[in-house]
Formats: sequence, C-alpha cells, structure tokens
Amino acid sequence: MSTTTPTSGHRTEVTSDPDVPLVRIVREFDAPPALVFRAHVEPELVTQWLGPRKYEMRLDHWDCRTGGSYRFLHVGDGQEHGFHGCFHEVRPNELIVQTFTYEGVPDGVALERLTLDDLGGRTRLTATSLVESFEARDAVISSGMEEGLAEAYERLDELLLRDTAA
Amino acid sequence: MSTTTPTSGHRTEVTSDPDVPLVRIVREFDAPPALVFRAHVEPELVTQWLGPRKYEMRLDHWDCRTGGSYRFLHVGDGQEHGFHGCFHEVRPNELIVQTFTYEGVPDGVALERLTLDDLGGRTRLTATSLVESFEARDAVISSGMEEGLAEAYERLDELLLRDTAA
Repeated sequence: MSTTTPTSGHRTEVTSDPDVPLVRIVREFDAPPALVFRAHVEPELVTQWLGPRKYEMRLDHWDCRTGGSYRFLHVGDGQEHGFHGCFHEVRPNELIVQTFTYEGVPDGVALERLTLDDLGGRTRLTATSLVESFEARDAVISSGMEEGLAEAYERLDELLLRDTAA
Repeated sequence: MSTTTPTSGHRTEVTSDPDVPLVRIVREFDAPPALVFRAHVEPELVTQWLGPRKYEMRLDHWDCRTGGSYRFLHVGDGQEHGFHGCFHEVRPNELIVQTFTYEGVPDGVALERLTLDDLGGRTRLTATSLVESFEARDAVISSGMEEGLAEAYERLDELLLRDTAA
C-alpha cells in the first residue's frame, strides 16, 4: 500500500490485492455521500475534477445511469486520450458499477465498483478495479494511476468545498 | 477442465483459470462467425437458445450494441430468474464484451468477453467470465453453469442448422 498526501489532509490509499488482479482505492471526503455521488454523475460536475490538472476533460457522452454509457477525452500537452465504458448499475448515493477502457490499450477492460459510505456528513469512497491479469493490473499501477487519482481527488475536494459553500 | 458431449458432437469445454478468478469456455459451431454473432445480437434469435430448455426466455430489453444494455427473465418450473448487464463493446462478427448479474445474487457482477474465430465456415467461440473472487467463481461453476451452457449451445446448434438451411 502507498499513499499520497493532498492539501485537504485526506490521503488516497491504493492497495494491490494479493490474491486477485484488483486494485483497491480508499479516500475520504469532507462532504456527505449525496454530494460526492452527484459529482460523479452530473456531466457539468464530472468535467471539473475527473483527471489530472494538465488535461481538459471533454465529454463525448456521459449517461451515468444503470444501463447507460460514457466516452470522454483528456486533452492537453498536444495529446488526446480517449476512455469509454458502460454503467452496469448506478444506485443513488451508494454504488456505481461500470466498465472502463483506456483507448490506448483498446482490448483492455476493467470492471470498476465504487461504493460510498456515510461517515456522518463525511464520506468514505472505496473504489475497486478488476482486470484479467496481474500483468495488466501492474501496468496500470506503474502508469502513474496513483498520482493521477490523487490529483483528481484533490480537485474533487475543491469542487465539494465550493458545492458545500454554495 | 471438463466437457459434456452434445448431439452435434461439439463439446463445451469449461476451464477454471489457475491464476485469476476466471472461467474460460470454448465451443465450436458448424456455421460461420456472422451467423453465430447474429444469434447473440438479434432479440428474436437470442430467445430461441439462451438458457436451458426448461425455461422460457423473456426479454425486458436486449440492446446488443456498444453502450447498450439488457435484462431478461428465465421463466419456468414456477420460478422466475432475472439477469441484467450492459454491453461495453460489440464488434460485429468478432467480439462482445459485457457485464452480467444474476439477480438472485444482486451484488455479484461478472465481466464477460466473447470472441469468435473463423475456422473457414465454422466458428470457434471463446467466452471468459471474470469475477472478484475465487469463491464467487467456484460458486458459479458448482451452480450447474456447465450443464446449462452445454444445453444452451445445443439449442444454438439447432438454431444455426435452421438458419443455415433457410
């Protein structure tokens, strides 16, 4: 397990499961589950935090509901990275299960599960990502996933702060 | 690995991966990939073979395209079993990647990948199903998955024979 300390004081914990090709991410937020959930679902909020700061997030489509799908681009540094998947289940304020493909590795697919636990006004987010092989899992981790996630969650902290203040 | 011999002579091979919680299914069909693919995609064909003979397959919806979703019921024996998921990618005559939940175990999700290889007029179908734990994988296998699949693929043989003859 390794952690990165952001400005909010909440660290993003990334753990590789020892038995199956799965990564587990745990992060707390100083906002209730309903707001954290909303920031994952509503397109105009998602684009404000999902990804490292150096990229602009452009949505092809973002239909975050059970049976919906998405595609987006990270644009910046003269580069364009595409991502897409479908939403298997979206349970308000609790759970999002979806697939995920980075189009640079078009045949790679991850099954992702996000759960939100109410800590009494605060939220514990737990996200898992399951892939077909340990090699694929370790390639994702060494691609800088952790730094990218930590920065995205810092941006989500900032959005939630604006949201809570609003 | 174990196999079951159907009337067509083509056996359904079911293998548990030794390293990851994945099942691999291999089956040949005496029809080209385009027909096997069509039988997976078109609702009025799917309902003729997908499942054991003792159940009627009723579609809630079946939208087999990249970003689509599905839900169906197996009805029979005074019972009703629901299944649903989303289609991550559908590549004509080659590939279907989807999620799968049996609603009797509502929090269980499998990531499934179906590939069709052209054997010169015949087809080799390879399907994998990935879940989060070895326990979940072994529970699926011991639930009678193999017998159900073998019977479904016999029904698909019969459908393809009618289709090819038509």
